[in-house]
Amino acid sequence: MKKISEALSIVLESSKSLGSETVDIDAALGRVLAEDIHANRDLPPFDVSAMDGFAVRSADLPGTLAIVEDIKAGDIPKIALEAGLCSRIMTGAALPKGADAVIRVEDARQLSADSVQIDISVKPRHDVRMRGESMKSGDTVLNKGTELTPGAIGILATVKAKNFRVFRRPNVAILSTGNELESIDDPVDPSKIPDSNSHALMAQVQALGIKPRMLGIALDDPEELERHLRKGLESDLLLVSGGTSVGLHDYVRPTIEKLGIDMKFWRVSMKPGHPLAFGVLERPEGFRALVFGLPGNPVSSMVCFEEFVAPAMRRMMGNNRPYRRTVTARLKHPIAMKPGRTEFVRVQLASDEEGYHAIPTGTQSSGVLLSMARADGLMVLPAECTGLPAGAKVTVQLLDGTEFQNKPGFQE
Amino acid sequence: MKKISEALSIVLESSKSLGSETVDIDAALGRVLAEDIHANRDLPPFDVSAMDGFAVRSADLPGTLAIVEDIKAGDIPKIALEAGLCSRIMTGAALPKGADAVIRVEDARQLSADSVQIDISVKPRHDVRMRGESMKSGDTVLNKGTELTPGAIGILATVKAKNFRVFRRPNVAILSTGNELESIDDPVDPSKIPDSNSHALMAQVQALGIKPRMLGIALDDPEELERHLRKGLESDLLLVSGGTSVGLHDYVRPTIEKLGIDMKFWRVSMKPGHPLAFGVLERPEGFRALVFGLPGNPVSSMVCFEEFVAPAMRRMMGNNRPYRRTVTARLKHPIAMKPGRTEFVRVQLASDEEGYHAIPTGTQSSGVLLSMARADGLMVLPAECTGLPAGAKVTVQLLDGTEFQNKPGFQE
Repeated sequence: MKKISEALSIVLESSKSLGSETVDIDAALGRVLAEDIHANRDLPPFDVSAMDGFAVRSADLPGTLAIVEDIKAGDIPKIALEAGLCSRIMTGAALPKGADAVIRVEDARQLSADSVQIDISVKPRHDVRMRGESMKSGDTVLNKGTELTPGAIGILATVKAKNFRVFRRPNVAILSTGNELESIDDPVDPSKIPDSNSHALMAQVQALGIKPRMLGIALDDPEELERHLRKGLESDLLLVSGGTSVGLHDYVRPTIEKLGIDMKFWRVSMKPGHPLAFGVLERPEGFRALVFGLPGNPVSSMVCFEEFVAPAMRRMMGNNRPYRRTVTARLKHPIAMKPGRTEFVRVQLASDEEGYHAIPTGTQSSGVLLSMARADGLMVLPAECTGLPAGAKVTVQLLDGTEFQNKPGFQE
Repeated sequence: MKKISEALSIVLESSKSLGSETVDIDAALGRVLAEDIHANRDLPPFDVSAMDGFAVRSADLPGTLAIVEDIKAGDIPKIALEAGLCSRIMTGAALPKGADAVIRVEDARQLSADSVQIDISVKPRHDVRMRGESMKSGDTVLNKGTELTPGAIGILATVKAKNFRVFRRPNVAILSTGNELESIDDPVDPSKIPDSNSHALMAQVQALGIKPRMLGIALDDPEELERHLRKGLESDLLLVSGGTSVGLHDYVRPTIEKLGIDMKFWRVSMKPGHPLAFGVLERPEGFRALVFGLPGNPVSSMVCFEEFVAPAMRRMMGNNRPYRRTVTARLKHPIAMKPGRTEFVRVQLASDEEGYHAIPTGTQSSGVLLSMARADGLMVLPAECTGLPAGAKVTVQLLDGTEFQNKPGFQE
């Protein structure tokens, strides 16, 4: 029985990035750069105005200036400014030769169509964005290992990187096991249980940007199971749910070992999720497959995915941030707890001026998936915890679908 | 000039959900249910064992029992238990008639192949999951308006909802304006500026699950602009960046008005993002298009998207949580600020045992997109704020790509 931290270390040590591939900027969101990206020119490419107003020689101020040109963004200025001259200029437009500052429209008084009175003085560079201020040609603007957020996509467009190298995403296969399971395509059989794990896992994999291969349901028969596992092992990552308990009818464990998978652990000290297994198939040709044996209980399967599979997948994709975002919350009501294993309690978050409150989502039975569907996060209670009073500080991992909230939450 | 809260109210009042469509469960992640979903049977469908062990009559305990059957998950039990009998049973398997409790393997001592000694007593229902405990046939298990997270997808699979109604997503068109812009497909022109806004906005729209129509760049020419705008108004939502400033060469505003768009506001009291415009095109046939005029500065454009466009899009998709998730952080270093407008400062988050620290990502110039690419969030400083000391509590909106972090962040 492994502690969570030991099990996580083993999983992450086995989760290597998978090499790289070229993608187009249109399909790159969420991917991780496998190369450094450099600026292809200075930006701004010349000194530009930061405001709508007048390009001036700062030494001329205060004073009355003659307007000699209108310069808008995209224009190449034609007239160099000599003493007493200025140009009307737009935000982002290039400064004319001789100009070293910009005066905003609201600080100038137009006297006629071609003259303006400016009563203030400014230093050189006032309201000017200097050439190369944002980036200099050749600068590394994004490092290998950067996750491509919308801001990073903007930078790629800025340096005109239309395509570039990113880490490959793992191929993922999903298999459910158990005679009691009924597939979503089967008619309702009153003696069976619907297979929800395949689909919940599918959605968890999709949330990481990957379309998994769905292998369906393997019956509790060693040959059928072996056939399905062999198919799954063609992927980089195989998720098998159910069948890893210690019972009599457990064919998964011996079949996994027969296939040469090096099982690193079979149990983890957590609740739910206790019967979580992990192994690695190393092949002579260098290809490696990771295998997770996930519990058959729907909530346990999802929690094990969050705590172990998602971090492994993000590492395989080259990501430096494999763990779920956590926030601190306060317990709304006291809770009792049996010590022994680290517990992941499904909670909703409510907020007031003091911050977040955590409220468990009703029954925490590992069979009750509704508690997971309603949760904003998983409250993590340490193994030695015997209970907590109302108001106690707790750590909550945010789950998918929590990037947004129902109130702005800031003061204007 | 509108306050942020006023502008947001106007935007959200105009952002109505767009009707519904049917999707398959494989393509439903992140969508919002447009119908209630009901349980199609009781779950569990019968009383089942919660453990591997022995199904017993609780009245027989403690005592020695004869084992009459092996029941695994998916089996239909054949032998009803009379006094003194028990069945070996697996987790998830149906209880035989007569049984009312389950004793775990570890609490039983096997005496021979067909008898077992149990020294404890339990109450009826011990380690039994009762029929209908998770859900009862006909129960509403997911309500209209639920965002389909992986847990909700699991529930849909549980009730065998292979397809169902969700709110339609808006069609989104993106247009950049300005003579100074160079498209990603154009060769480098040293007098021009690369168009990053189209691509950053594309990625922000993609992050909400939508593939936008890219309309390219419109030059500062009223006819060309009108042609592009007409094309964009075929979508539910048109994002136009650049061109909304008050300068001489601004063709966007008059052209927008000529097209019959009812402009609700032109400016918002925020920094960056001041020149943000919003309008609605109502058509006789009932079709409505929303138009945002976003600032030309790359950071301003992205911030306005986060604060106004994303909430509008999420409302159009039927979502009840339109606003970015916020966390409380403490300032790492003191900051000075000029009061007047609500300021959105790009920050990185670091954490220690006290919680999050916010650290601005360097220059906050609205031209410097690198500050956005490096940010974990936007720290929101109220308009009247004149500066804050180190350690002050601040509100930070989390940005895309922050669902994960580099440390587990919980105590085991």
